[in-house]
Amino acid sequence: MFKKILIANRGEIALRVIRTCREMGIKTVAVYSKADAESLHVRFADEAVCIGPAPSSESYLKMANIIAAAEITNADAIHPGYGFLSENAKFSKLCAEHEIKFIGASPEMIDRMGDKANAKSTMIEAGVPCVPGSEGVIESFEDCEKTAIETGYPVMLKASAGGGGKGMRAVWKPEDLKDAWDSARQESKAAFGNDDMYMEKLIEEPRHIEIQIIGDSFGKACHLSERDCSVQRRHQKLTEETPSPFMTDKLRTAMGEAAVKAAEYIKYEGAGTVEFLVDKHRNFYFMEMNTRIQVEHPITEEVVDYDLIREQILVAAGVPISGKNYFPQMHAIECRINAEDPYNNFRPSPGKVTTFHAPGGHGVRMDTHVYAGYMIPPNYDSMIAKLIVKAQTREEAINKMKRALDEFIIEGIKTTIPFHRQLMDHPDYVAGNYTTKFMEDFEMKA
Amino acid sequence: MFKKILIANRGEIALRVIRTCREMGIKTVAVYSKADAESLHVRFADEAVCIGPAPSSESYLKMANIIAAAEITNADAIHPGYGFLSENAKFSKLCAEHEIKFIGASPEMIDRMGDKANAKSTMIEAGVPCVPGSEGVIESFEDCEKTAIETGYPVMLKASAGGGGKGMRAVWKPEDLKDAWDSARQESKAAFGNDDMYMEKLIEEPRHIEIQIIGDSFGKACHLSERDCSVQRRHQKLTEETPSPFMTDKLRTAMGEAAVKAAEYIKYEGAGTVEFLVDKHRNFYFMEMNTRIQVEHPITEEVVDYDLIREQILVAAGVPISGKNYFPQMHAIECRINAEDPYNNFRPSPGKVTTFHAPGGHGVRMDTHVYAGYMIPPNYDSMIAKLIVKAQTREEAINKMKRALDEFIIEGIKTTIPFHRQLMDHPDYVAGNYTTKFMEDFEMKA
Repeated sequence: MFKKILIANRGEIALRVIRTCREMGIKTVAVYSKADAESLHVRFADEAVCIGPAPSSESYLKMANIIAAAEITNADAIHPGYGFLSENAKFSKLCAEHEIKFIGASPEMIDRMGDKANAKSTMIEAGVPCVPGSEGVIESFEDCEKTAIETGYPVMLKASAGGGGKGMRAVWKPEDLKDAWDSARQESKAAFGNDDMYMEKLIEEPRHIEIQIIGDSFGKACHLSERDCSVQRRHQKLTEETPSPFMTDKLRTAMGEAAVKAAEYIKYEGAGTVEFLVDKHRNFYFMEMNTRIQVEHPITEEVVDYDLIREQILVAAGVPISGKNYFPQMHAIECRINAEDPYNNFRPSPGKVTTFHAPGGHGVRMDTHVYAGYMIPPNYDSMIAKLIVKAQTREEAINKMKRALDEFIIEGIKTTIPFHRQLMDHPDYVAGNYTTKFMEDFEMKA
Repeated sequence: MFKKILIANRGEIALRVIRTCREMGIKTVAVYSKADAESLHVRFADEAVCIGPAPSSESYLKMANIIAAAEITNADAIHPGYGFLSENAKFSKLCAEHEIKFIGASPEMIDRMGDKANAKSTMIEAGVPCVPGSEGVIESFEDCEKTAIETGYPVMLKASAGGGGKGMRAVWKPEDLKDAWDSARQESKAAFGNDDMYMEKLIEEPRHIEIQIIGDSFGKACHLSERDCSVQRRHQKLTEETPSPFMTDKLRTAMGEAAVKAAEYIKYEGAGTVEFLVDKHRNFYFMEMNTRIQVEHPITEEVVDYDLIREQILVAAGVPISGKNYFPQMHAIECRINAEDPYNNFRPSPGKVTTFHAPGGHGVRMDTHVYAGYMIPPNYDSMIAKLIVKAQTREEAINKMKRALDEFIIEGIKTTIPFHRQLMDHPDYVAGNYTTKFMEDFEMKA
């Protein structure tokens, strides 16, 4: 087993990983930017190394500094969390070169699954259902026009290197294709330094349902059922739940099998997520694979009753998995509490937290790095807490979430708590009747 | 279902009951003493009524004031929590007379099970194993001497109305019996206004293992397995766990059956606990029955995955139970965090909490009414928080508790956190090798 793990991240996920390491008797090294010196992940780690100034490019994305911190502290593994370097093939390779175990995917795996067009052709080979569209990268606008006709309008243009909605365009009729092609490529080039595009059929009334998988170094994989992440605003997930209210036993079995097939085909090692779009007829299509732990992993933990970070570490250390697929008995919901003003177009609201009272009690879990007196820096993601509830039924879980949100007191900044509170009362949410378009029509009540 | 429940209690249990009521859509009324005006249970209830000054006898034990508060607010039920009026037959009767449902035992049941000598003879009738000793109350010292010889030394003298260790004396040899008899009766008279005594065989190397039961109004009862509460200091529980490290499948089945038999024999309605002493040969003996929810109920909730307060309310409203006995798959531990100085003979340490940071994350539950800025009044029980963890195995649960205790920051007062932290490293605790005598030899390390 590893003796010391460096956590190349910040915020709640850094704290999350430190917690599991402590429970496993593994020493921890936190890294931090100058903006994060007062963070809990720095306080609770056994050692902490400052790796640069506030901008991520000069600290949390600065590979050389992180590797140096690992070498100075004799860390034998690095956990990258999510975001930052968690799906960076170069960093995974750099770790290997320095004989530090990267607790995540191999460089080859990241290359293969991180590029969306490559990932899709791999999944077609593996026999996993994919959204109809281009086979890999579109070479030219002529190719684009031809593919759009073959796929059938409406179609979606997507940047191969994309993420977070950048470099994406929905195109409903042929005459709009040229503009979309030009502007999506331009946006992709600016955001990712790469303008490779691919095309997919646009799925109407789509739901984002993902399957958590774990694979081990012996080629075995299993799944831990689904998470419904359809409540998204500009492709950013806001709340997630498991089971999906749209799920049936038959669909779960089929999606679970497809995800395991995908993982075993590529000999995937570690925790990963296979994201699918599900249409209103319950057809499902591979969307992408995330080769890392995800923000929303706790809802799965709550219904499977074990620790996914622990599983990641065990698998990275060469321990085989049990291989048992899991079908949920309970219902769990996560609300991402962001320092944003939901009454003002979700504008970021960094600043000093003056009062912080977290909800607790039966079926309530809090994952947060925030405390009274903490200064939320403006430099990073605005998520400040994950509030997770678990109950016997979806109805009870919603009621528990309402109760917990009502108890949650944060003063000094604006948060998305009022948004989640209204969401939990929204008739379509309560009915489980929502797609990824849900937020397009959502308006905050005064 | 009830429309509005008054919670005749304070602190964490008042908050605990309010939370469940909110989740069930039931309105709540808090009552509070003047010392508790700033408490969270007052803040989170729908309505709050001040029922008197700080001393319990003038507020939380003042039946007329509580009944009046219920009538003024139109509450149709009262939840008494634990302690205070939760096992007071007169109060239960008073509620019935005012057509307010008491969410607890009937006056007859409290009379029958609350008096320890009566409870014992009832259990003997029911065929539940009891500690050998006197049949009911001892009439005279001559009777006492005779019973001691029949029972066999060592014996334990106990006050019929007792609790919390008051009016109890262990007697190892005949020549010490007279002094013990006199002083125990004196103590009982002073504490409870009653000097009735009974006698039991003193169980050497005893463990306190209790079975959680639920009975419904149709005469059906089930059990939810055991809690090991052997770590006690002066008969006050400090930490509890489930399953008991001393338990075997065979013993659990036998104890569970005995507890269900006890509950069904007396047609017990509601949540209750049958407490047993278990000797080193795994013989078990009925000790007492608590006709209320207990402080340590959350560890059972964590392993059965449902809400015991909800079950109490449902049963009180006439809903039948499923009747399924439960055998734990997970391991849960609770540490009672008290405002006491473990380095100074657990001396109470009331005062203002200046900093409060609660642990969180995977498998951690916090039940507390305390927040930064809260003034702990000197008038009540010193418990300020319950920290509960759950994991796949006992070893993992202990490691999780250590991690959570290390994260728990309370400043301004002394707490028992350092005690629990040392306990979790104690070789006998770690080995599961502890009895109710454990604390007699325990010493805090510097």
